[in-house]
Amino acid sequence: MSSEIKENGNSHKILYTTLDEAKKLGKTSRDIFHDFNSGRLMPQADVIGEGVYYDMFQHYLMLADSSRMLHYKRGIFEKNKIKGKVVLDAGSGFGILALWCAQAGAKKVYAVEITDNYKHIIEAAKANGLSDIVEVIHDDALLVDLPEKVDVIVSEPIGMSIIAEGMFTFLCSVRDKYLKPDGEILPCGGNLYISAISDPDFAGRIESFFQNFKAMYGVKMNHLIPRARDSLSSRAFQKSIRKHFLRSEPAMFKTLDFKTMSFEEANCVYGDYDLEIVSDGLVHGFSIFFDILFPNGTLLDTSPLSQPTHWKSTVCYFKEPKNLQQGQKITGTVKLRVVENIEFFIDVTLEYRIDDEPLETNEYCLGFDRGQLINLINFDIDPN
Amino acid sequence: MSSEIKENGNSHKILYTTLDEAKKLGKTSRDIFHDFNSGRLMPQADVIGEGVYYDMFQHYLMLADSSRMLHYKRGIFEKNKIKGKVVLDAGSGFGILALWCAQAGAKKVYAVEITDNYKHIIEAAKANGLSDIVEVIHDDALLVDLPEKVDVIVSEPIGMSIIAEGMFTFLCSVRDKYLKPDGEILPCGGNLYISAISDPDFAGRIESFFQNFKAMYGVKMNHLIPRARDSLSSRAFQKSIRKHFLRSEPAMFKTLDFKTMSFEEANCVYGDYDLEIVSDGLVHGFSIFFDILFPNGTLLDTSPLSQPTHWKSTVCYFKEPKNLQQGQKITGTVKLRVVENIEFFIDVTLEYRIDDEPLETNEYCLGFDRGQLINLINFDIDPN
Repeated sequence: MSSEIKENGNSHKILYTTLDEAKKLGKTSRDIFHDFNSGRLMPQADVIGEGVYYDMFQHYLMLADSSRMLHYKRGIFEKNKIKGKVVLDAGSGFGILALWCAQAGAKKVYAVEITDNYKHIIEAAKANGLSDIVEVIHDDALLVDLPEKVDVIVSEPIGMSIIAEGMFTFLCSVRDKYLKPDGEILPCGGNLYISAISDPDFAGRIESFFQNFKAMYGVKMNHLIPRARDSLSSRAFQKSIRKHFLRSEPAMFKTLDFKTMSFEEANCVYGDYDLEIVSDGLVHGFSIFFDILFPNGTLLDTSPLSQPTHWKSTVCYFKEPKNLQQGQKITGTVKLRVVENIEFFIDVTLEYRIDDEPLETNEYCLGFDRGQLINLINFDIDPN
Repeated sequence: MSSEIKENGNSHKILYTTLDEAKKLGKTSRDIFHDFNSGRLMPQADVIGEGVYYDMFQHYLMLADSSRMLHYKRGIFEKNKIKGKVVLDAGSGFGILALWCAQAGAKKVYAVEITDNYKHIIEAAKANGLSDIVEVIHDDALLVDLPEKVDVIVSEPIGMSIIAEGMFTFLCSVRDKYLKPDGEILPCGGNLYISAISDPDFAGRIESFFQNFKAMYGVKMNHLIPRARDSLSSRAFQKSIRKHFLRSEPAMFKTLDFKTMSFEEANCVYGDYDLEIVSDGLVHGFSIFFDILFPNGTLLDTSPLSQPTHWKSTVCYFKEPKNLQQGQKITGTVKLRVVENIEFFIDVTLEYRIDDEPLETNEYCLGFDRGQLINLINFDIDPN
C-alpha cells in the first residue's frame, strides 16, 4: 500500500487506493468523492463506501423511501423504547435517526458520521431545537472514543438481501465496543425469504425479443437466446418484483439477530428452503427479499406483497426458464456471502432441486458494478 | 505500465490495468469482463470499454431501441447506397449492421469486432445465409489489415451528446486508414441542440421533498435544499425529458460531418446558442440532444419531440432554478469535451447569460461513474 502518485502509460493517475492513504494525503471525504467520480483512483471498497455515503442522491433515495422511513420512525417512537436513554447513531448520514431519537425523549444522542455530511447534522439539530441532546461527532464510529457506553444503538446498515452493503461487521464492532450488556439495537433483527418467480417483464421479454427479431428487423437472431440466458444467469439483479410474479409462497431461510450475530454471520448467511409451485407455467428463477424487526414489534417488510422500497428484490434466474406445474416442489439451499473487502457486492450461491431431479447449483454476483449499472440504469427506457 | 500481479494491504488484487496488459497475460474479452465485474482490476478506460461492448444487456438496450434500429435500417436500405459496394462495419457488435448491408446488396462486408461476440456474428451470417458476403474478423478495427480500401464505413459510435462514448477518434482513424477518397460514412453526420427546460419530475421534486420534509417525517430539513442544488448542478445527467418540459425552442449549436471531422473535434465540440423562453415559470436548466444523418437523408432524432431512445438527453441544471418570463433570452456557449483516456465521460461547460445579466459559467461531468449510477439506477422506484 503506497501513497505515491503513480501514472501509467495512458496518464491515468492513481492518487491513492485506500481511505487510509487518502487521509494521509490530507484528502477530505469530498475530495475523495470527487476524485473517485473523475476516475482518478481505484474503486477500493472503503473509498467507494465513502463516496456513496457522502452522495446527496443516494441519501435522497433512502429518505424518499417512505416505507423505510415510516417504519424506522415507528420503531423509534412507539412503545417508548428511547425515553431517557443514551443513544449512539452509528453512521448518522444527514442525522434523521438521531433527531428522531432526541424527539422521542433520549437523554443524549451521539450522532457519529464519517463524511462531511456531519455539518448538515449540526445544522439540523439547531434547526429542530435539539442541539442540547444531539452531539455530532465527525469520525468513524469504530475509531471514536465515546465517554460512555450506550443503552441503544440505532443504525441503518441494511443493504440488498440485508447484508449486501457490507455494513454488519461495522455494526458488530460498534456493538461490541459501546453497547451496554442489556442495551438494544434498533432495528434488532431480520428474516430472509426466497420465492420462485416468473418474470415476463424482463427475462421473458428478452427471450421473446430475440425470438421475434426477424419480424422486427428482417434478420434472424434466435442464436442469441442461449447467450442472453447465459448473461441472465451469471449475475443477480436488484429488481422490483410485482406480486403477481410470485409462483410460490415465500419461504423463510434465515433469521438474523443483530444483537447476537457473529462477524461470520455478518459476512455470510445461508439456509435451506422448500417451495411449492402454486400455478402452472414458466418459472424464470428466484426472488430473495427480507423483513427487518424493531424491539417494539415494528416490521419493515420488503416483500413483493408490501409497499415497494429502494431495496427492491435480489433476483436470480435459472440457466433456462422451466415449465413447472402446480404442486411441483423446489428444494435447496441459498448462501449469501459479502465479497471480501468489496462492499456492495455479494456472491449468491443457489442450490435447487426440482422434485426428485438432480441437484443443480448456480452462482451469481450481486453488486453495484459498472457494467451492470450501465445496463440497469437504462431499463426504464426499454421501448417495448 | 506493469503486468505483475499487485496486491494491496486489503488483498484487493489488481490483475492488470490496461487491455494490452490483459492480453499479454492471455486474457480473453470474457475474462476481462468477468475480472472487471468482480472488482479485481482498475477501471481503465479501454478495459471498461471492452467490458461494456461485450455485455449482452448493453447490446439488448441498443437492439431494443427501435428508433435507433429502424433509422439505421432505413439509412442502409433506402436509395440504394450500399448495392455493389465494399463495406467495413467497424466495431460490429452482434453484426446487425453488417448483415443489413449484405442484405442490401453489398459486394463484400468486413465485420470487425474486438470482443468475443465476433463468434455470434459468424453464427448470424450463417443463420441468415450471408456467409459468402460477410467476413467476420476478430480484432481491433484499428489494428487489422484489410486487403482493400472500402467504399462505405458503417458504424454506431454514437454516445450521449454524440461524442460521449469516446468512439469518434476511433472512427476518424479507421476512416483515414480504410475509406476510399470518394467513400461514404453511414451515418455521415449529426447536429447538437440545446433547450431550456423545467423539470418538475426530478429537480423540482427533490426541492419540494426537502421543503415538505417536516410534514412527512416531523423534522425540518430545509437546510438541505442548497446541498441538493449543489449536487444537481455539479454533474450532468442522462435523463429522459418529456416534450412539455421544454421551455424554449431548441437551438442548434453544432453540426458535425463524420467524413471530415478532425481528431480535435472528435474530442471536443462547442458552439453558441440563443434561446427565448416561451412561457412564464421556473426554469431548472438545459437539455442537450442531437440528431444523426445518413447519406440518403434519413434522420435519427433524439429530441424530446421524437420517439424516446436509449440515449435519452444530457441534462444540466442551474445552480438554482430561475423564475423566467415569456420572451426572456438565454444566450451563451456550450462545450463538450471527452475526458482524456476515460471513455464514457464528457465534461460539459455551459456559459449562460439571462438577458443582460452577468455571464455565468458552470461545469458538469457526464459519465457512467459508479456513484452516479448507484443513484440513477434507483430513480424508477422513487416512491413519490
